[in-house]
Amino acid sequence: MLSKNQIKLITSLQRKKFRDTHQLFIAEGDKLVMDLLGSGIKAAYLIYSKDWQNQYTIDDRNSIESRIETEISQIKKISNLKTPSQVVGVFKIPKLDLNKKEIANSLSIVLDDIQDPGNLGTIIRIADWFGISHIFCSPNTVDLYNPKVIQASMGAIARIKLSYIPLDSLLSEYQNPDFPIYGTFLEGETIYNSKLSDKGFIVMGNEGKGISDVLKEMVSHKLFIPNFPENQETSESLNVSVAAAIICSEFRRLEF
Amino acid sequence: MLSKNQIKLITSLQRKKFRDTHQLFIAEGDKLVMDLLGSGIKAAYLIYSKDWQNQYTIDDRNSIESRIETEISQIKKISNLKTPSQVVGVFKIPKLDLNKKEIANSLSIVLDDIQDPGNLGTIIRIADWFGISHIFCSPNTVDLYNPKVIQASMGAIARIKLSYIPLDSLLSEYQNPDFPIYGTFLEGETIYNSKLSDKGFIVMGNEGKGISDVLKEMVSHKLFIPNFPENQETSESLNVSVAAAIICSEFRRLEF
Repeated sequence: MLSKNQIKLITSLQRKKFRDTHQLFIAEGDKLVMDLLGSGIKAAYLIYSKDWQNQYTIDDRNSIESRIETEISQIKKISNLKTPSQVVGVFKIPKLDLNKKEIANSLSIVLDDIQDPGNLGTIIRIADWFGISHIFCSPNTVDLYNPKVIQASMGAIARIKLSYIPLDSLLSEYQNPDFPIYGTFLEGETIYNSKLSDKGFIVMGNEGKGISDVLKEMVSHKLFIPNFPENQETSESLNVSVAAAIICSEFRRLEF
Repeated sequence: MLSKNQIKLITSLQRKKFRDTHQLFIAEGDKLVMDLLGSGIKAAYLIYSKDWQNQYTIDDRNSIESRIETEISQIKKISNLKTPSQVVGVFKIPKLDLNKKEIANSLSIVLDDIQDPGNLGTIIRIADWFGISHIFCSPNTVDLYNPKVIQASMGAIARIKLSYIPLDSLLSEYQNPDFPIYGTFLEGETIYNSKLSDKGFIVMGNEGKGISDVLKEMVSHKLFIPNFPENQETSESLNVSVAAAIICSEFRRLEF
């Protein structure tokens, strides 16, 4: 059974303010919860139905402070989904340990004010697929621990190091002739003909406004995903997570 | 002013059953409505606020049966958005005119039971960007005229010919040694090393179940988007619209 105070605490985690205060976030659903447990992220609570417990074995090595078996009617009270899952995990926000040398020698994604939780979750999943370990977000980017981001990332957050940092200072810190900073612009070079590196930053801009002026100046390589045929009327742009997917794929195809 | 009957009719269009009966669909927002009007799709009603009318000029060539200026409080009643727009269009579902020769000589996308409206809308936008004019959907794919699909497609539906058809008969009809049928499978060939044609079908499967068994048998070219590095633990798969984006980009990069 969940106590009233537990229900109050857990539902408060829908809001960033309380996630920050308690350093906790929620994840729902078999696959996502099992992925997070398996990744070493610590759980404060694991709340599940009897049916769920009969189907899944929770390894003793998984660090779970409190296991609570309860009724689906109670899970409904804390669920953020239309059809609540049989399991909800309340996880501790992990502390990140960033290695500058590793960052300077690999590709990272830089997100400038991405607002849509689905887009952020999808980009995390893309980074995971293409072996991009670090994502840096402007402070105004949607919160990683927003339940919709967590659901859209499908467990990929367990493997990606994502941090919030003022992007102008980040880019200044790594800016040097051997470390390319890529961004997509309508006036950029066709990505299919561009020389792409296996290290650098890939900057993706806000859904409506694109990359901010301050960062534009710091981009060393302007890229463009051309539409086809080139002179035919088409959509104004590609969705940011779709563009991120195509760009990451282009960087990685060089390795095959 | 909107009459009670008009409000009843327009809100009923949230449901497929009534869209089918009336052969009408709703679109909201400046850009989307202007795109659809500009594309030649006919409007039964254009409903807008006074403010909106002062900002936008509706060309007389745009075919609009009824123009209704009203209060935002009325627009709220028919809107499907959290923050209603100043303009709502009720459009007539266009009749498609499919040209078999054109289909046999170009690339088309085939969608096998895509369920998520956002995914369908995003795939329509991708097709539009990459000059893929035809999309064929299994009868169980989410409805094109679902308001969420319309919003996610960002006006691209005005340029794409999308139809619902049993996919096994469609594939049988076009199946021949010169017309490749592509699909993505974990056991497929790395797409970066595959020979890709400028015609054929690209089959994309359901979000959870992938491509159905019947269609699997009909795929002549199995493709795979490899993760990187190849042996590292990663997400189980890419989102279907993300995979569609990477695949379409790979087909079109050959032209640059």
